[in-house]
Amino acid sequence: MTEKEKMAAGELYLSADKELVQDRLEAQELLYQYNYTRGYEKKHRKEILKQLLGAADDTTTIMPNFRCDYGFHIFVGKNFYANYDCVMVDVCKIRIGDNCMLGPGVHIYTATHPLEPAERNSGLEFGKPVTIGDNVWIGGRAVINPGVSIGNNVVIASGSVVTKSVPDNVVVGGNPARVLKHIEV
Amino acid sequence: MTEKEKMAAGELYLSADKELVQDRLEAQELLYQYNYTRGYEKKHRKEILKQLLGAADDTTTIMPNFRCDYGFHIFVGKNFYANYDCVMVDVCKIRIGDNCMLGPGVHIYTATHPLEPAERNSGLEFGKPVTIGDNVWIGGRAVINPGVSIGNNVVIASGSVVTKSVPDNVVVGGNPARVLKHIEV
Amino acid sequence: MTEKEKMAAGELYLSADKELVQDRLEAQELLYQYNYTRGYEKKHRKEILKQLLGAADDTTTIMPNFRCDYGFHIFVGKNFYANYDCVMVDVCKIRIGDNCMLGPGVHIYTATHPLEPAERNSGLEFGKPVTIGDNVWIGGRAVINPGVSIGNNVVIASGSVVTKSVPDNVVVGGNPARVLKHIEV
Repeated sequence: MTEKEKMAAGELYLSADKELVQDRLEAQELLYQYNYTRGYEKKHRKEILKQLLGAADDTTTIMPNFRCDYGFHIFVGKNFYANYDCVMVDVCKIRIGDNCMLGPGVHIYTATHPLEPAERNSGLEFGKPVTIGDNVWIGGRAVINPGVSIGNNVVIASGSVVTKSVPDNVVVGGNPARVLKHIEV
Repeated sequence: MTEKEKMAAGELYLSADKELVQDRLEAQELLYQYNYTRGYEKKHRKEILKQLLGAADDTTTIMPNFRCDYGFHIFVGKNFYANYDCVMVDVCKIRIGDNCMLGPGVHIYTATHPLEPAERNSGLEFGKPVTIGDNVWIGGRAVINPGVSIGNNVVIASGSVVTKSVPDNVVVGGNPARVLKHIEV
Repeated sequence: MTEKEKMAAGELYLSADKELVQDRLEAQELLYQYNYTRGYEKKHRKEILKQLLGAADDTTTIMPNFRCDYGFHIFVGKNFYANYDCVMVDVCKIRIGDNCMLGPGVHIYTATHPLEPAERNSGLEFGKPVTIGDNVWIGGRAVINPGVSIGNNVVIASGSVVTKSVPDNVVVGGNPARVLKHIEV
């Protein structure tokens, strides 16, 4: 397996691998262009997003600055909206359903590192995918940790740190996030 | 009532309304210019802020990147200072008193959405104003939620998520933020 | 003592002092250039960092946007890596050991203000240094408060707000951060 294949499979891999460094540079170049577009350049923004992301369409809106590692691991459904300063660390897949909206400054992480320092310093790291259902509203400044799955019709309160998976039809909040309320659908 | 009037009144409104889209584009254009100014362009920064905000004066300092939705709903008192990367989602009024300072990355939100997914997906949303008194210091990375009022002489600890109103003369901290200490004034 | 000397010593000082204003403008100018570099300009980035920071070398990597107040108070060890949108408020020294990595959006603060409003409004402020050991991984969106010392081989969970010093060989998390786990080294 190449380092890129190990990364996508959630196995330990070396992020300094030549192919991965090149992939990240290409994503950074597209993000550079994206983040320097102006508000009225909607068409140009959508063109860049379709090139950068694994799945995006004409209903995808992401406000600058947007940051990610590769882009090709990010799949967003219809009517996706992310407000300012969203960061997605996509060493593994980030799958987001239809009709999801993210407040400003939401961070979604799939990358993690060994806890043991010698192993971590060797440069080996690994990822876990993040899956988000349909009709999910993630409040501003929330953090979604590696490996988390979020159900359908979920509301994540602003400032939440989501460390565990979240079932359908609930509001969660806090650090770590806990279920605060059930939503009647 | 127009959608803009409903928005300002805290009623359900459609953010895709043509007038509101145009208002946001105008704010984004000013913010684009603002965030590309350099540190020594103090005069130019103040000119843009006076044009963008509902109230600002020569004592207003905001470090880039600054982000907001409309600007005209933001009213800051004398000697206002916001450090890097402040976000204010101003679909309703954000009133800030005199001598207030914000650490880096403070987010102030007035926008909220229905919890029920079908209603939320219809595009209807609503706001609640935020009011901040005099002599308030908001620590870095704090989040202020819609509808919150903060009294005079308050200190918000860094990283707080403020979900409820805060009385005069206290230190609050945590997620959700709670009173940690009273301040003798 | 000059205001700059008082600042570095952790005493009350006036940040509006002419020398300090000039020092901050110089740092802002370097940061402006830094944050507009592209991903492939690795050599140029390292040149700016060596000029800006108190200690940095060819193994230092900081992703844009990077923000700090002065730069000359920041000392990073070998193999330092900071992901996107790191903020370091360096009115006092920030010393970081070898092999440390910061996730996206980590904020490190050394600046603080009097709690009493009249004293705070006088413009007097003060700082406390931050010290971070070797082999420390700080997760995304963590906040490190003024005066905090972090030991060796520490992992700070994403979204943590670190208000107290942290011993060697532990994982901490939450707001305020607490020890979650010991690490066998």
